[in-house]
Amino acid sequence: MNLPKPNFTPPFNITRASHVVLTVADLGASRAFYVDALGLIVTEQTPDTLYLRGLAEACHHSVVIKKTTDAPSCERVGLRVFTEEDLDRAKHYFENMGLPAQWVEVPEQGRTLHVSDAFGIPLEFCATMPTRPRLYVDWQKYQSGSPLQLDHFQLHMRNAPKTAAFYSELGFRISEYVVVDDKMTSAFMYRKGGPFDMVFFTAPGPRLHHFAYTAPEAHDLIRACDICGDLGFGDSVERGPGRHGPGGSMFVYFRDPDLHRIEFFTNHYMTVDIEVEPICWNRRDMRAAAPWGLPAQRSWFEEATLFTGVAAAAPSED
Amino acid sequence: MNLPKPNFTPPFNITRASHVVLTVADLGASRAFYVDALGLIVTEQTPDTLYLRGLAEACHHSVVIKKTTDAPSCERVGLRVFTEEDLDRAKHYFENMGLPAQWVEVPEQGRTLHVSDAFGIPLEFCATMPTRPRLYVDWQKYQSGSPLQLDHFQLHMRNAPKTAAFYSELGFRISEYVVVDDKMTSAFMYRKGGPFDMVFFTAPGPRLHHFAYTAPEAHDLIRACDICGDLGFGDSVERGPGRHGPGGSMFVYFRDPDLHRIEFFTNHYMTVDIEVEPICWNRRDMRAAAPWGLPAQRSWFEEATLFTGVAAAAPSED
Amino acid sequence: MNLPKPNFTPPFNITRASHVVLTVADLGASRAFYVDALGLIVTEQTPDTLYLRGLAEACHHSVVIKKTTDAPSCERVGLRVFTEEDLDRAKHYFENMGLPAQWVEVPEQGRTLHVSDAFGIPLEFCATMPTRPRLYVDWQKYQSGSPLQLDHFQLHMRNAPKTAAFYSELGFRISEYVVVDDKMTSAFMYRKGGPFDMVFFTAPGPRLHHFAYTAPEAHDLIRACDICGDLGFGDSVERGPGRHGPGGSMFVYFRDPDLHRIEFFTNHYMTVDIEVEPICWNRRDMRAAAPWGLPAQRSWFEEATLFTGVAAAAPSED
Amino acid sequence: MNLPKPNFTPPFNITRASHVVLTVADLGASRAFYVDALGLIVTEQTPDTLYLRGLAEACHHSVVIKKTTDAPSCERVGLRVFTEEDLDRAKHYFENMGLPAQWVEVPEQGRTLHVSDAFGIPLEFCATMPTRPRLYVDWQKYQSGSPLQLDHFQLHMRNAPKTAAFYSELGFRISEYVVVDDKMTSAFMYRKGGPFDMVFFTAPGPRLHHFAYTAPEAHDLIRACDICGDLGFGDSVERGPGRHGPGGSMFVYFRDPDLHRIEFFTNHYMTVDIEVEPICWNRRDMRAAAPWGLPAQRSWFEEATLFTGVAAAAPSED
Repeated sequence: MNLPKPNFTPPFNITRASHVVLTVADLGASRAFYVDALGLIVTEQTPDTLYLRGLAEACHHSVVIKKTTDAPSCERVGLRVFTEEDLDRAKHYFENMGLPAQWVEVPEQGRTLHVSDAFGIPLEFCATMPTRPRLYVDWQKYQSGSPLQLDHFQLHMRNAPKTAAFYSELGFRISEYVVVDDKMTSAFMYRKGGPFDMVFFTAPGPRLHHFAYTAPEAHDLIRACDICGDLGFGDSVERGPGRHGPGGSMFVYFRDPDLHRIEFFTNHYMTVDIEVEPICWNRRDMRAAAPWGLPAQRSWFEEATLFTGVAAAAPSED
Repeated sequence: MNLPKPNFTPPFNITRASHVVLTVADLGASRAFYVDALGLIVTEQTPDTLYLRGLAEACHHSVVIKKTTDAPSCERVGLRVFTEEDLDRAKHYFENMGLPAQWVEVPEQGRTLHVSDAFGIPLEFCATMPTRPRLYVDWQKYQSGSPLQLDHFQLHMRNAPKTAAFYSELGFRISEYVVVDDKMTSAFMYRKGGPFDMVFFTAPGPRLHHFAYTAPEAHDLIRACDICGDLGFGDSVERGPGRHGPGGSMFVYFRDPDLHRIEFFTNHYMTVDIEVEPICWNRRDMRAAAPWGLPAQRSWFEEATLFTGVAAAAPSED
Repeated sequence: MNLPKPNFTPPFNITRASHVVLTVADLGASRAFYVDALGLIVTEQTPDTLYLRGLAEACHHSVVIKKTTDAPSCERVGLRVFTEEDLDRAKHYFENMGLPAQWVEVPEQGRTLHVSDAFGIPLEFCATMPTRPRLYVDWQKYQSGSPLQLDHFQLHMRNAPKTAAFYSELGFRISEYVVVDDKMTSAFMYRKGGPFDMVFFTAPGPRLHHFAYTAPEAHDLIRACDICGDLGFGDSVERGPGRHGPGGSMFVYFRDPDLHRIEFFTNHYMTVDIEVEPICWNRRDMRAAAPWGLPAQRSWFEEATLFTGVAAAAPSED
Repeated sequence: MNLPKPNFTPPFNITRASHVVLTVADLGASRAFYVDALGLIVTEQTPDTLYLRGLAEACHHSVVIKKTTDAPSCERVGLRVFTEEDLDRAKHYFENMGLPAQWVEVPEQGRTLHVSDAFGIPLEFCATMPTRPRLYVDWQKYQSGSPLQLDHFQLHMRNAPKTAAFYSELGFRISEYVVVDDKMTSAFMYRKGGPFDMVFFTAPGPRLHHFAYTAPEAHDLIRACDICGDLGFGDSVERGPGRHGPGGSMFVYFRDPDLHRIEFFTNHYMTVDIEVEPICWNRRDMRAAAPWGLPAQRSWFEEATLFTGVAAAAPSED
């Protein structure tokens, strides 16, 4: 099996997973879940939008939650680039590929570029946001799972190897991947120096499987579950706490009131060095990938959030 | 529903759950599991018996594992009484009830009394054991789940209320209990000042559902799972880590190589005071009893260890 | 060196350390400290008294804080007995010893007996209190250090061996003790089945050195410090977090606004069995008793709370 | 006060703190300390050199310990660059500044460049190392403090602002800094996306104050102390466990048998974004910088490791 070749001189500098834009039926219910039950911080709330961030984040938002009367969906996956010049290069790059890219005004973000990737994921790039003080030493604000910062997105894609090849061109590198019968079924890709920024699984897509926040320690994952239980969100604990094979973290997955999925997990390792080979997991050897614990329930494997106005389709070799 | 009346002046002074005697097919496999994978301490091993204890225990053993060529089973549930005089009173008490009790020689225990309770559980009482240094500040010996001390037994009984009434006469008191349609289906009973020493569930019995050790903190439960995974015992993690309703602890359940079940859990509250009423849980309200997390798999509800030579039968009103 | 002989058939049944009665200059300041900064639960507040308890406690109070215009002090150390009959036996016992004992009315306690021990500690015994629901599964109420239950008192006494002998007669047993040059300088004594209920150090006394609550895990001790820092009580962290030799717990000591001292610590081992010998620590070997960490600052060794109206005096051989 | 201007287009791409080269009197004593007591992993040992790494590290070494008969010292501070081309650019850059740079053969490293910075710190740059499997899911290898990866160096420099200006030119950016009377006394600088890679304090220098490894959770710091105590290294715990102001981590500092200092600490936040301003701490407000806990002992402030053959001098305005 050939992995896509890493591109050490990408056309523009994507620095990290930045934010996700979700639509929901009831902002109050979302706030009760994300803020009261999980511990995210409200940076700002308008009549129809809720801007949230983690305790260690200085940028204005890492989740944007908008009220909709349509079916709940994911509007955009947000990525950060290093400088304004990178934004211009990004526009040029995508247009050269035949992917229409346009400047849009987005509240509480710097200049923002909208483009859909080759598989239909609606992306959003910006180089700056308004900032707020990091709350990382405001211990009273550490509540429930004490989410620190958005770390990565996991996406269901019709063809994980092709998606990985596309993002490799953008400078994403593979830290770990899973194979079944010598075929890659998932790729864990990074920009920021940990193992993940975007994770691609072959499955009906494109869909957002989950977005993930780091939490300080495993007991914070347990506390998030306990507080969910206290507040009537016990059923929102979909999977875990348990131990990941790839990445090696402790994890827990929650479903929000609109069934969007969020993961809290503990610390990751450092990547960056170019001589270190990606780690391969064989999915036929399930006890290698998940050394203990029950398999996830069916919903975890099958359910994911549609992107607004984007139809999902079955996996495809093409 | 009437709870059995507590007996504050019991006929003899049972102080605590003491030890369990199990039979297994392969001592080496048991040692690999209990010692290498879970972290119990070997006090002594003979050609056919393994004596284990927890890090904080001074008494010679809290689990005795004997090699058998028969089907694996539980030989005895061991209880401690305060003094030798209590042993004599125990013999007298049981004989008066028509339950034959006899003195037996048991290695590494003081004078020992064998008797089966009114429901067929083979009990074993003693007042002393040879002691070893507690290892509670020998930090290098804290390995895997770092089990500290045996805490309680959970038993499947044909009729939990009748069992609770029998043990109430012996001075056991109910800390918590579960009802379904105004009928008690389980009773958590104690002697030693925490909430549990013996727990009775109405289910086909008598059978030993599990025996339980305290572990210092929740991360020790996680480490026990991780080490099990490392050593090829990943499938032995049957349930959890998760949060109990009754008792409020974090727990994890393991199945040993002969399918005996052991629980590790974190800290408990203090009982003792006579004016505090037992806590009632309504099993129809499952999110009260288990505020988050998936239900246990079927094996946890249905499988348990038979007592040596004692047939189990279905629950019964009589 | 001869340890006092344990009395397995004490004249009345003391079950545990129950509560402490402190006087303070400013109830509001005490509430800010104990409730907001440390996480204790308010059962009730009257204009001049604050009744607090831990999360796992059902009894009405384990700390009583009274407003005074005099110098802050400790009014009483409270102990629980098992039944009302034990109270009567206690009165008889103390009067026979020439220690005046009298019934008093104390709010929110059952029948209460006041007596000073042979060394001047003002004691208070009761057999019952009004109860409240245990909050041990109300996870939102777990705040800061999440104190669970009052565990023990540490007292500075003019002569620890003599104090230990007095309390041995009452059924307290020694779990651990410290010697210097073959002389006992401290005795850790228990009734309830853990290693400590009352701890006696030879030092100018009688004085209350501290009272101690169990906390669930070491990270809860750290969180208590962090929240203290947030709320302007950073200087109240007097010692730790660190590791005890005797008892083996993680600990942290705080000074309240009136300089009363409170300890939070993690889990203890089980005692009870009569054949287990007390553990001896040699204070000349400081790295045995405190294997790592700096020694406590001078205030921890020298400062303690006076009992109301009781003069302290230097240690004495008599 | 003017902070040095960040350089977003540095002359070559330094990616991270890589490794430190120490000399010691007795390799066996160092191994007992770093491996048995602290939990570092031995990649390789030759008769006169010990190569160690953390559990999550793929590169051959992050500490190199060499036997010497001279006074123990620090030979080199190692930094990683992204590619071989960056190495060439580095050589060119330093030579242009008048800082002699030369290629050297170093075992178990790719092509290596030696150069001393403008203040006398002997640096070593390389772009690759031989790799080993990351051990981040080999749970049995998690021992004592479970060090994951080298994170940063702290250096005592004669003039922190000038040092910060020099490293700003190299692309290091300030995440946090401390001022006294409007003068910068320390600068926390990063390359890899966390808050620190190199930290500079104004103090007699140049000297290496410490190098630091991340540990998974606070209980791992405590376990490192406990194991140190078990193995006779209790006195090596110089400071903590405690809470940092800058960075917000839990920390503990150890002194190795040659008095080199190593820190273990818990997780850090993400930096990277260019619009986020450095955080300023005022050292006159000590409870801001260290909200609770005693100040470090004098040795922590005053003692540090000399660089081999480099004299230290008092702080200087020039």
